[in-house]
Amino acid sequence: MSEESRLRIAIDAAGTDGGPELIVAAVDQLLASHSDLRVLILAESDSTSRLAERLSRPAVEIIPCEQALPPDMNAAGAIRRGRGSTMWQALELAQQGEADAVVSGGSTGALMALSRHLLGTLPGVERPALMAAIPSLNRPVWMLDLGANLQVDARRLLEFAQLGQVACSVIEGHAPKIGLLNVGTEPGKGPDVIREAARLIDEDSRLDYAGFIEADQVFAGVVDLVVCDGFAGNVLLKSAEGSVKLLFGRMRQEFQGSVCGLLAKKRLRRLHDSLDPARHNGAPMLGVRGTVIKSHGGTCSRGFARALELAAIQVRKDLVSCLEKQLLAGY
Amino acid sequence: MSEESRLRIAIDAAGTDGGPELIVAAVDQLLASHSDLRVLILAESDSTSRLAERLSRPAVEIIPCEQALPPDMNAAGAIRRGRGSTMWQALELAQQGEADAVVSGGSTGALMALSRHLLGTLPGVERPALMAAIPSLNRPVWMLDLGANLQVDARRLLEFAQLGQVACSVIEGHAPKIGLLNVGTEPGKGPDVIREAARLIDEDSRLDYAGFIEADQVFAGVVDLVVCDGFAGNVLLKSAEGSVKLLFGRMRQEFQGSVCGLLAKKRLRRLHDSLDPARHNGAPMLGVRGTVIKSHGGTCSRGFARALELAAIQVRKDLVSCLEKQLLAGY
Repeated sequence: MSEESRLRIAIDAAGTDGGPELIVAAVDQLLASHSDLRVLILAESDSTSRLAERLSRPAVEIIPCEQALPPDMNAAGAIRRGRGSTMWQALELAQQGEADAVVSGGSTGALMALSRHLLGTLPGVERPALMAAIPSLNRPVWMLDLGANLQVDARRLLEFAQLGQVACSVIEGHAPKIGLLNVGTEPGKGPDVIREAARLIDEDSRLDYAGFIEADQVFAGVVDLVVCDGFAGNVLLKSAEGSVKLLFGRMRQEFQGSVCGLLAKKRLRRLHDSLDPARHNGAPMLGVRGTVIKSHGGTCSRGFARALELAAIQVRKDLVSCLEKQLLAGY
Repeated sequence: MSEESRLRIAIDAAGTDGGPELIVAAVDQLLASHSDLRVLILAESDSTSRLAERLSRPAVEIIPCEQALPPDMNAAGAIRRGRGSTMWQALELAQQGEADAVVSGGSTGALMALSRHLLGTLPGVERPALMAAIPSLNRPVWMLDLGANLQVDARRLLEFAQLGQVACSVIEGHAPKIGLLNVGTEPGKGPDVIREAARLIDEDSRLDYAGFIEADQVFAGVVDLVVCDGFAGNVLLKSAEGSVKLLFGRMRQEFQGSVCGLLAKKRLRRLHDSLDPARHNGAPMLGVRGTVIKSHGGTCSRGFARALELAAIQVRKDLVSCLEKQLLAGY
């Protein structure tokens, strides 16, 4: 395959807790199984030599940048002071058509603001939404929004359902059954904004709407796509992370030093892996005119590699064009 | 102990999925270890004979009622059509001084509305809040609100912190370290209402405020009391329930039929019990002029017994007077 026809992913090497070592390991994992990719790593000048030493191969280009944005950088600060940063430069490569996708573990607010600023949004989309997959009984369940839109009105929730519907169809290959997160399943339950959103989503005949869903049912795999505001989505995701971590911590205490623990080790490891958030790392930023994936700041190399793979899938399946087509068709 | 001096708990026998069988088992468990209690069971006429057969003893009185409220009964419906129901009658006993506490597994909205209607609220409290304990690394963490106040302003969040502070001090015997639920810990994070609430809670020198807390950190036991609106609280709690259930389900699959599974059985059972929501069942309705405990509709007999015990603790420690004193003192 010629260098020119390879799919190019720009990586913001800052913002991931594991630092350059993690990026190196993730890129190694990615390229071992995807020989048709090219990665452009945007890194602060002081870490480029370390990266270059470890990743010296034709499919990798390392690009030094002036600065990295702090992890708590907000939207306004990113726009004002973000120029020349690893995140800005990665998005600028996409803007200039020199990269097909961007993956970043940096601040969600900054990534959203700079994505809008540099790439723009699709027709009718005011603010992009973050969509991510969480484990459930039988398959991953996709959910949006996850952090970038904290307070939304009913029309925005409808828009999330529409964006998510197209994205899930493209990524999973079938139209999702959609649930709207609420504190009860009866029609009269919940705040006004959610009841109004239910009406709007139900009215849209292109959406397979299954009604309200409570947070515990999300993990039972009752629906394929969960729609909620970014605050509730963040709470749901982090609550699951925290309680699973608590449970595995207790499990270690219970089994430590016992014969039973030794015997159970492999099974528990397999169990942990099947529920590991890293398996589902990578949140597409939907509504941006370009492929931008937010990676969890605290992910491991396997998780970062998964986010890179997700970027490749989206580009190959041309998700952005599919979204644009649907939005122009009346969404 | 004379019948007159016994602490009296009124039980709304409807609204709990397990039905009369569960109530019988829970009351048996309670009275086995608390000989100083008396229970008044409000039940629909058609189940009183079954209850009477199984609970024929001096400490138990069974009172037939005309109706039971449906589990999805809302506040307005409960006020308009709730008269004569098991929930209404239980609260009326408390209103008339014939019961010291009420425990119900019925609709939260109905229980809150009827509690306000029949018992009233404490000075300055507009709407009561539901507080409940969830498991964490080292001890239960209390959290409010959990479902009854879906959308609140900053002053209500301050009030939750104040009510929770007094309740935790009374129940646990020490003043709680308080966290405010948010999507990040940096001061600039989150919706306006939460940032404003942070300012108000921080200004109140009687509160030991530890700042914002993210949902995953709740399970690490970083604080003793978590303040949030009822929507976020419901999502946090149910997300934890759902993910723990998913994990135990997967665990059963992994261990089923294996020698290792047999060996691990006892440890896994112990683990499950330590995280079982039933251990923490029973949500005090804070701000009501009386002791009202909401029990989870889907709880087991052990969980219902735990809610009954919590009611007894609150009455013995005179939580309602403590709350009133604090509220009159300037809260």
